[in-house]
Amino acid sequence: MQYPEPIAQLIDSYMKLPGIGAKTAARLAFYTVSMDGDDVTNFAKALIAAKRDLHYCSICGNLTEEDPCLICKDKSRDQSTILVVEESKDIISMEKMKEYHGLYHVLHGVLSPIEGTGPEDINISSLLTRLQKNDEVKEVIVATNASTEGEATAMYLSRLIKPAGIKVTRLAHGLSVGADIDYADEMTLYKAVEGRTEI
Amino acid sequence: MQYPEPIAQLIDSYMKLPGIGAKTAARLAFYTVSMDGDDVTNFAKALIAAKRDLHYCSICGNLTEEDPCLICKDKSRDQSTILVVEESKDIISMEKMKEYHGLYHVLHGVLSPIEGTGPEDINISSLLTRLQKNDEVKEVIVATNASTEGEATAMYLSRLIKPAGIKVTRLAHGLSVGADIDYADEMTLYKAVEGRTEI
Repeated sequence: MQYPEPIAQLIDSYMKLPGIGAKTAARLAFYTVSMDGDDVTNFAKALIAAKRDLHYCSICGNLTEEDPCLICKDKSRDQSTILVVEESKDIISMEKMKEYHGLYHVLHGVLSPIEGTGPEDINISSLLTRLQKNDEVKEVIVATNASTEGEATAMYLSRLIKPAGIKVTRLAHGLSVGADIDYADEMTLYKAVEGRTEI
Repeated sequence: MQYPEPIAQLIDSYMKLPGIGAKTAARLAFYTVSMDGDDVTNFAKALIAAKRDLHYCSICGNLTEEDPCLICKDKSRDQSTILVVEESKDIISMEKMKEYHGLYHVLHGVLSPIEGTGPEDINISSLLTRLQKNDEVKEVIVATNASTEGEATAMYLSRLIKPAGIKVTRLAHGLSVGADIDYADEMTLYKAVEGRTEI
């Protein structure tokens, strides 16, 4: 016996999402049938609307309804700093912090020789164009993830941008706030000691 | 800064699914925007179709496009046995086994005093009606999950059905096939010893 056709189709769709395998997709599909009709309709509408109404900002690559995005448009923001992130959603995390008031640039990925992602596959060339066009920029903060690929991308950007006389910085490594020392891995601990600050 | 409205709406919808929290929902929503347009459209259509075209079989409670469902309609199946499951998707698992050829009954839940689910909240009365109407049924196999609630529901059904002279059985407990004894919990091991078979 097979799944009824509508369920099979829905399972296929759920399985296209990252981190969702056959078992979870089946669970979600059966759950969907038991959901409130309006919720399902809204879900379908939200999918269509998100795909239709959102675009990448032509300046920074951020996900936005209008182009340029609200951050690029906002002239009250510090125009001398660009913070480079891997994904649009990282901007949300940074903005939640409420302490950064400069501009952003979204790479949409990281350099990864293993996955065959080279500099031309991510949003680097438009960053260089931005820096060339705009001599207000004094600092590029590379906020890629603390993974091997994130580090490699940061180093690559640094070598590319520094010769133009622009300061390139990287987020600090160290203990998470509230973290126990005996739970920290050795590399994090080493970085925390190396980057110690006077009190 | 907030999420753009279409993303916020999609996150809300993803969060209505079981086991998906705010972080995962955001990840899925951003991923959706990067998906192929046709895949997103198909996803939305599948959601609507599943909700619109699937109903519960009026006889057994299985999820089906036509009423009665294909299993209830199939007169070549063994009409003397009804296997009782918690959810429609359990029927798929049973059918994949290809060794059971009787009928099914879906409870759509289990008795759970903690969650306030009583006998009238799950699909029990229609099972009793089926048994009264149809004296062909000789055995009811209770295949609820091996949880406390599943066991309690099995006991409840047994007390209800046995007086009518119908045999009530429960799936065997024991080691999973291929399982290591030292990974089995004590209760499973106890059940495996208790239910030992001669070789």
